[in-house]
Amino acid sequence: MTKQITLDHGSGGRASHELIQRTFFPFFNNSLLAEMNDSAVFETDGKRLAFTTDSFTVSPIIFNGGDIGSLAIHGTVNDLAMCGAKPIYLSVGFIIEEGLSFEILEMILSSMKKAIAEADVLVITGDTKVVPKGQVDKIFINTSGIGIIKQNCNISGKNAKVDDLIIINGTIGDHGMAILSQREGINFETAIKSDTAPLNKIVEKILANTNGIHVMRDPTRGGVATSLNEIAMQSKVGIEIWEEALPFSANVLGAAEILGIDPLYLANEGKFLIFIKKNQAKKVLDVLHSHPYGKGANVIGEVKSEPKGKVWVRTKIGGKHLLDMLIGEPLPRIC
Amino acid sequence: MTKQITLDHGSGGRASHELIQRTFFPFFNNSLLAEMNDSAVFETDGKRLAFTTDSFTVSPIIFNGGDIGSLAIHGTVNDLAMCGAKPIYLSVGFIIEEGLSFEILEMILSSMKKAIAEADVLVITGDTKVVPKGQVDKIFINTSGIGIIKQNCNISGKNAKVDDLIIINGTIGDHGMAILSQREGINFETAIKSDTAPLNKIVEKILANTNGIHVMRDPTRGGVATSLNEIAMQSKVGIEIWEEALPFSANVLGAAEILGIDPLYLANEGKFLIFIKKNQAKKVLDVLHSHPYGKGANVIGEVKSEPKGKVWVRTKIGGKHLLDMLIGEPLPRIC
Repeated sequence: MTKQITLDHGSGGRASHELIQRTFFPFFNNSLLAEMNDSAVFETDGKRLAFTTDSFTVSPIIFNGGDIGSLAIHGTVNDLAMCGAKPIYLSVGFIIEEGLSFEILEMILSSMKKAIAEADVLVITGDTKVVPKGQVDKIFINTSGIGIIKQNCNISGKNAKVDDLIIINGTIGDHGMAILSQREGINFETAIKSDTAPLNKIVEKILANTNGIHVMRDPTRGGVATSLNEIAMQSKVGIEIWEEALPFSANVLGAAEILGIDPLYLANEGKFLIFIKKNQAKKVLDVLHSHPYGKGANVIGEVKSEPKGKVWVRTKIGGKHLLDMLIGEPLPRIC
Repeated sequence: MTKQITLDHGSGGRASHELIQRTFFPFFNNSLLAEMNDSAVFETDGKRLAFTTDSFTVSPIIFNGGDIGSLAIHGTVNDLAMCGAKPIYLSVGFIIEEGLSFEILEMILSSMKKAIAEADVLVITGDTKVVPKGQVDKIFINTSGIGIIKQNCNISGKNAKVDDLIIINGTIGDHGMAILSQREGINFETAIKSDTAPLNKIVEKILANTNGIHVMRDPTRGGVATSLNEIAMQSKVGIEIWEEALPFSANVLGAAEILGIDPLYLANEGKFLIFIKKNQAKKVLDVLHSHPYGKGANVIGEVKSEPKGKVWVRTKIGGKHLLDMLIGEPLPRIC
């Protein structure tokens, strides 16, 4: 039987990494791509720019807390912000199924407009394709983006240092659980809302007021667990996470229990992990707590020298267990 | 009944223009986007950059002369070249249907690799989504790209001048007819081959050796007829095309007759229109004729002061008829 692409290859977890490393890299290999950060960073005439791309296929296209339009803007803005870039220009490519109503399209465009205004970026180029009914599901959106990075800024998944503290800006798993509970028809007294948000302004504030940031990453597909594993491997360090410090909303925890899912593997769209020099952590927390997107920020763990490339959870009762990358794909079309 | 998106909205012709002008612009409006060229051009610290995006949904994904992979690289490289930019970096976003074979995927990647090498660009960032079977047809690819423009270069669809001559670098309609004849199962002694090719090197050569280029545009969706109408409107000039000067291959003309299609509306993927100061046209033709992608170059018409925004064809027997933009969508998923 011929080997085929499976949903696992799009999970953001282990199979995705293997697809990229084994299948894509041999064809596209170059040193900028090989950095494997959320954005590629390049220099032109002494000016440092970041460049990133993301396709969005989320289903349902409208969900509690957002829609595919706002998600597409936030996703690319955040990928730029994660390498310390100030996002400036975006492109938007629509692939639309014949028969989509103008009402839905305009709802999505209106939500993109709001997201663009909040992130303070411009969409300067675009493309629209329409394909016959049944050949794409409703609407897919690609956004690519360009940002500017200050010369002295050096944030990368490779830069985590032993003794760094790890901060997250709020509750974990809200986007993934919002989509999942909507698909499964699980109802709570308060519906679970996606955390989708543009993070560039809060990142700008942190960069302007603190030093010693080594890594930033937004744990989207594959969740916090997968992002931490990526960073542990890129930086060749060990990571320890403290179970009791992990912020979750009660609804997400409840739904996770019902569904038997570990929320550390659920996608987030308005959260980011910060690896920061220990003596600077308090300052970063102060900035985060003063911003609407950082109110629930917490230190969740620290960087160790060993075991390199691995992530451990120290449980509430003092035990320890390994936290692997996402394996399999519990939730296709999450973003 | 709610108004719905139709295939016409993706044709590249009149309905596409209306969708962009009436539906998209009110949400995204800014002066860079409003330029409506193949790429957006922006300045950062005195450095001029071009930025463009394109999604590719061509069906069949492998066709005579190329495949969706080479097409995706050529399309974005050409959009950058058309505003006089030297393409440097690309992003690639894959949306793959669950079940696509690795064999097909690697064939597409291998063809992208060749196209990247020929165009001398790098893919520095990417994204891969996999969606469940039936929710996308096989594979769609988005490519976005960044190029560098020289300070003194000022090529735009707005810059056509009265008395400019109009040059095309070779035969018209080959890509569209290659796809169409393959879909319709029309066989010729020699199969019609797509003209898909990267145009950046030939453009570089022209820019290095000539002056007076006002407009360049690659007539993809909507064909030569639609591109000329766009330029006539953007530059507020009239355009006259000479029927006897239009280069067609015998096979494309034959197939067009059988199918009752005007090849001026068929997509090209390795052709470009040049609007050039009359006294420089000979020089441009000489450069074109010395290059594999310009051997069939010809002067096909000229710019008139009136009627503004209109394109006329002067027929072989001396008559004249109006050449409108593409209306309707004869051929969805052409690129």
